[in-house]
Amino acid sequence: MTETNVRVLFVKRPVGWVDETSFAVVHEPLRPPGPADVVVRNVYLSVDPYLRGRMAGAFREGEVMVSRGVGEVVASGHERWKPGDLVWGFLGWEQYSVVARGEGLYRVDPSLGVPISYYLDVLGMPGLTAWVGINVIGRPEPAETVFVSSAAGAVGSIAGQLARLAGARAVGSAGSAEKVRHVLDVLGFDDCFDYKASASLPESVMGACPNGIDVYFENVGGPILEAVLGHMNPLGRIAVCGMISGYNTTQDPGVKGFAHILGKRLTVSGFSIYDHMWRFDAWQPKMAELLTSGRIVYHEEIWEGVERAPEAFIGMLRGDSLGKRVLRVGADPTA
Amino acid sequence: MTETNVRVLFVKRPVGWVDETSFAVVHEPLRPPGPADVVVRNVYLSVDPYLRGRMAGAFREGEVMVSRGVGEVVASGHERWKPGDLVWGFLGWEQYSVVARGEGLYRVDPSLGVPISYYLDVLGMPGLTAWVGINVIGRPEPAETVFVSSAAGAVGSIAGQLARLAGARAVGSAGSAEKVRHVLDVLGFDDCFDYKASASLPESVMGACPNGIDVYFENVGGPILEAVLGHMNPLGRIAVCGMISGYNTTQDPGVKGFAHILGKRLTVSGFSIYDHMWRFDAWQPKMAELLTSGRIVYHEEIWEGVERAPEAFIGMLRGDSLGKRVLRVGADPTA
Repeated sequence: MTETNVRVLFVKRPVGWVDETSFAVVHEPLRPPGPADVVVRNVYLSVDPYLRGRMAGAFREGEVMVSRGVGEVVASGHERWKPGDLVWGFLGWEQYSVVARGEGLYRVDPSLGVPISYYLDVLGMPGLTAWVGINVIGRPEPAETVFVSSAAGAVGSIAGQLARLAGARAVGSAGSAEKVRHVLDVLGFDDCFDYKASASLPESVMGACPNGIDVYFENVGGPILEAVLGHMNPLGRIAVCGMISGYNTTQDPGVKGFAHILGKRLTVSGFSIYDHMWRFDAWQPKMAELLTSGRIVYHEEIWEGVERAPEAFIGMLRGDSLGKRVLRVGADPTA
Repeated sequence: MTETNVRVLFVKRPVGWVDETSFAVVHEPLRPPGPADVVVRNVYLSVDPYLRGRMAGAFREGEVMVSRGVGEVVASGHERWKPGDLVWGFLGWEQYSVVARGEGLYRVDPSLGVPISYYLDVLGMPGLTAWVGINVIGRPEPAETVFVSSAAGAVGSIAGQLARLAGARAVGSAGSAEKVRHVLDVLGFDDCFDYKASASLPESVMGACPNGIDVYFENVGGPILEAVLGHMNPLGRIAVCGMISGYNTTQDPGVKGFAHILGKRLTVSGFSIYDHMWRFDAWQPKMAELLTSGRIVYHEEIWEGVERAPEAFIGMLRGDSLGKRVLRVGADPTA
C-alpha cells in the first residue's frame, strides 16, 4: 500500500486534436476502500483510440482517466479476490485503483507463458476482435486473399497473421512507409501498401491483390472501403470492425459501390467484441499457444510511468506508434 | 404440331423506356428440330423486369424474345423427355419452342395441386428468392419486425407472407395507393405505406415500424435503404435481393448510413437465386402445401395471347401490374 497515489485526471473536454491541457497529473492520498472493494496496484495501462470518443462524452471532467489495465490485488474485501491475484479490467490512470466490489475485474493467468501486459492487447480485446473477424466472420480458406486495413494497428496486425495461419494470403494497408515495412518484415504479411502515398487506392488494392479479395477486415471505412468493394470476389465476406465515418448521415458522404454487395453476393457483418466476451476463456489458451510457439508475433511499445500517459496517448492518436503502446506504471511481479 | 409459329422477335435495342418498336410479331414455319431436340408447346410465359437488362445486352436483335415459361412437350428426341411431359425453363415468346437437347428444362409436377403457371413465380424463381431471403438469410423470429420494399411485387408479396408465417410482423412499402391496399387487404401485411406519397421516408419507416426493423428484405436500394439502415435494430439482418443503384460507381450517389452496419452489428447479405437452385426439389412441395392450404395467397394476372407479350411487358415496366403478370399463349392441359 501507499500513502499517496499519482493520478492522471481528465480536466478539459478536447475540441479537435487532444493536447496536454485535457489532463492534470496530481498526487493524492489513496481513497479508503469500502468493505467489499478491491484495491489494485496497477502494473500496465493501455492507451487506445476509443478513449478519444469517451473524452467527448462518457468521461466527466475532474475524474481520473480510465482505460484497460493489468494489476495486482493488494487488498480485497471481496471473496472472489485476494492479495497477490493478478487481474485485468478497467482501471484508472493512477498507481492504485479502488475497484468497487471488484466489478469488471477478470483473472490474469501468468501460467499461460506470455507477458501479462498481453491481456491488454493480443490476449485481450484487440486479439479476440481480430480472431472473431477472421475465424468467426471472415473464415478465409487456403489460397484466398484477406485484406486488412490498419494492418500495423493492434487489431489489424493480429488479423493478418491469423489469416496467414488459415493458409490465406494476407495483404494490408498502413499509414507510413515505416509501418508498411513493419507489416511486411516483422508481421510477415504477403503484401502491404502505404495508403497515404497511394495515387489511386483502387489501383493500389488491385496491385496488391491480383486475385481479388475474398475477406476484408474493415477498420477504416471511407475511400479504402470503396476501393475494396470494387475488388471483392464473388461470395466474399467483409468483417466490419471499425469505421471512421460517423453516424450523422447529414454529414455522411455515403459509401459508393454498395450494389457490389448484391452483384457479388457479399456478406457484410458489423460486429462488436462485446457480443463475443463469452469466447474469452476457451480462446485465451489457444492464442497464448500461438504466441509461445512463435506462430503469431506481437510487438508492444512499453512506456514507463503513469505521468507519461497523456503524452503516450496524444502521440498514439497522431499515429506515432508502431504496434500496441502500453504504459508500465508499477513493477511487474512476473517479470 | 403446327405448320406456323407466332413469334415475338426482339428487333431494336431500347433507349430509355421500352416501347413497341423494340418488338415484331411474325408468323413463321416451325424450325425442324435436330435429332436430340425437344419441341415444347408453350402454355404460360413470364414477363419480368430483369428482361429489360437483357435487352440492353445479352439479347441479339432479330432473335426471338426469351423468358421463363411453362409448356408441354409435343416431340422429343431426348431420352429424358417424352410427349405429354410438362416442363418449365427458358422458352421463346412464341407458340412453340425448339429446345436444343432439352437443355435447361425442368419438370413440372401437376400433382402438387397448384396451377402450373405458378412455376413461373410463387413456385419458381421469385418464390424461392423470397424463401431464401426470409428463411435462409433473414430468419425472423416471432414478434420481430420484417420490412419488405416492393411489397406488392412478385418476390416481395411472398417474402412478407413468409415473414408472417414465421410469427414476425410484416411491413412493406409499395408505389401506389392501390398497391398498398392490395398488400394490406389481400396479402395480409401488418402495415404498408406508399413511398411515392411519403414526405419523409425515415418518418414513414419509423411510423410503420415502431419497434424498429430486425430483418430488411431489400429490393430497391437508394433512399428507402438509407431510411431503413437508420431504423434497424441491433443484430439485424438485411437480405439484399435487388437494387436500383447500378455498379457504375462514378454515377453512384453512395449509400449513407453504412456505419450503422458497425454500430448496430448488422449483417448485410447479397444473394443470387442461382446459388440456391439446389434447394428447388425439397422446397417446391413445402411451398405448394402452403399455397393449397391457403396460408400463402398469390395473385396472378393472366393475359391471353403471345402477340400481347410486348404490351404486357411494357406496362409491367411502367408499374401498371398488381401481382405477377403471366401470359397464356396456349391451352393449359391441366385446367
